[in-house]
Amino acid sequence: MIPTVAWTGDALEILDQTRLPEEEVVLRLTTEDDVIDAIRRLAVRGAPAIGVAGAFGAVLAPDAAERIASARPTAHNLRWAVERVMAADDREAEAIAIWREDQAACEAIGAFGAAELPGSRFLTICNAGRLATTGIGTALAPVYTRAQAGEPVEVFACETRPLRQGARLTAWELADAGVPVTVLPDGAAGALLASGVVDAVITGCDRVAANGDVANKIGTFGLAIAARHHGVPFYVLGPRSTLDPATPSGDAIEIEQRAASEIAVAGGASVWNPAFDVTPSSLVTALITDAGVLREPFGPAIEDAVSGGAAGSS
Amino acid sequence: MIPTVAWTGDALEILDQTRLPEEEVVLRLTTEDDVIDAIRRLAVRGAPAIGVAGAFGAVLAPDAAERIASARPTAHNLRWAVERVMAADDREAEAIAIWREDQAACEAIGAFGAAELPGSRFLTICNAGRLATTGIGTALAPVYTRAQAGEPVEVFACETRPLRQGARLTAWELADAGVPVTVLPDGAAGALLASGVVDAVITGCDRVAANGDVANKIGTFGLAIAARHHGVPFYVLGPRSTLDPATPSGDAIEIEQRAASEIAVAGGASVWNPAFDVTPSSLVTALITDAGVLREPFGPAIEDAVSGGAAGSS
Repeated sequence: MIPTVAWTGDALEILDQTRLPEEEVVLRLTTEDDVIDAIRRLAVRGAPAIGVAGAFGAVLAPDAAERIASARPTAHNLRWAVERVMAADDREAEAIAIWREDQAACEAIGAFGAAELPGSRFLTICNAGRLATTGIGTALAPVYTRAQAGEPVEVFACETRPLRQGARLTAWELADAGVPVTVLPDGAAGALLASGVVDAVITGCDRVAANGDVANKIGTFGLAIAARHHGVPFYVLGPRSTLDPATPSGDAIEIEQRAASEIAVAGGASVWNPAFDVTPSSLVTALITDAGVLREPFGPAIEDAVSGGAAGSS
Repeated sequence: MIPTVAWTGDALEILDQTRLPEEEVVLRLTTEDDVIDAIRRLAVRGAPAIGVAGAFGAVLAPDAAERIASARPTAHNLRWAVERVMAADDREAEAIAIWREDQAACEAIGAFGAAELPGSRFLTICNAGRLATTGIGTALAPVYTRAQAGEPVEVFACETRPLRQGARLTAWELADAGVPVTVLPDGAAGALLASGVVDAVITGCDRVAANGDVANKIGTFGLAIAARHHGVPFYVLGPRSTLDPATPSGDAIEIEQRAASEIAVAGGASVWNPAFDVTPSSLVTALITDAGVLREPFGPAIEDAVSGGAAGSS
């Protein structure tokens, strides 16, 4: 598979996710505008992947670091990565370290998740897989870990309107890996949960506040409410770089509004198109990170994980 | 506005809803195949409207009554209307009576709903308006009644994947009537409810079982769960012809599966595409019908309404 993000020494190459699944097009980015444009129009997307892209953007154009860091406001990893590169003596080495750490974090999330998740049938939204990272994904990492071990695993993917990342990207990468995947309209999640075929809901995250509130793709909150209604556990998976102890709770997370043009409507109608929603930590069964499985009370668990507490299922 | 359904004496004319909002095309149906095709491919849709279409279909092709009645399995009104026409001595007169009664039922639902619904900002799904009936709609009837009276009213419409009846039809007819309408992705309903701008959720219904369980457009159940989570009342609106005392509960309602091709996915992925889901009556605040507002316990209230109990807010 073509890597989501790759560094050639003088350019950042990304697989253009707006063209998937129809075409596999690699974009070569060499300027700040290239990088910012690719992030804004979601040619590269997924909080960990845009963190890595932003890191190399800061290598390519250090004078534009602030513009790159603010290209998308909700994902925590982007600013985190850019600031880390800018604070380093050797920026390229730091960006490469962030890239390698992302891959390692995905592996760790896969291992912790494979041990933690009950059953074998998982419902997810958007794409929190290989395409959202430079490794084996976040929410989908345990799926790949289980599949690699020859264990049965099956994924139900919400279509994820308006940009259809579930139907386009999650379906594409799982089918490519030979994992059975079924796409459903976002509105069908309640009926699917009621039918009893889902063992757990698994999602990625764009930013996790200090209290465990989770900003993620619009629709995540509705899945969490429906999962709780049906007694199905709801897991959020992501690397420590998505944890943001400086933001006290979900209320303080800036939610990016996307263009109305993403949703065609009859003339005269308005459009409300937020990119993300906030799931309160009270609906989250556990956060599965590269530092282990974080459980309630989330506040101290997140603090420990960010300050580099020992990795392990706590 | 072009009527949803009209009878010319020798043909059934319908506004082709698959072409909206781009084009207003009227189809002239004269044979059983014309009628069945129009119902199956949703050129005419909405439980009350397909009831009226089915009634005239039985006038045009009485020998095909059973085929017409079973063209779509979930909506109760279709079989109810066809059987009523077939049991009548003067079939055309009976179909015309069903047509006129549908218009009157919409007016009554509008009046009862306008009195019952709290606030002025309503969230809905799919289309349960003029286009779903031959009158002013079911869920949207109170919206038109309020607007007609000069009262403020505003609608949030879920896009309603996969066929986008909210973005195409509800947005079109409300904008046409000068009612402010905002379309949102289906997944954004949880965030909208959390934001506090919704006073009530209003939906139509395709079949209401004897215990008050409601089959309606896929996504309705998720809205009901999210409304309950946020303490927002959830109302179901429809004519008595949608009430089905012969079906004891939602478990016994046949749910139509639609073609996988309605949802484009990456190769290798499967699709789950049910047309409807079932909302348990425990999540329903009230059923607003042309016989009045039905409340818990729904069983006896539905029985009374169907047996022709006095209309009135009970």
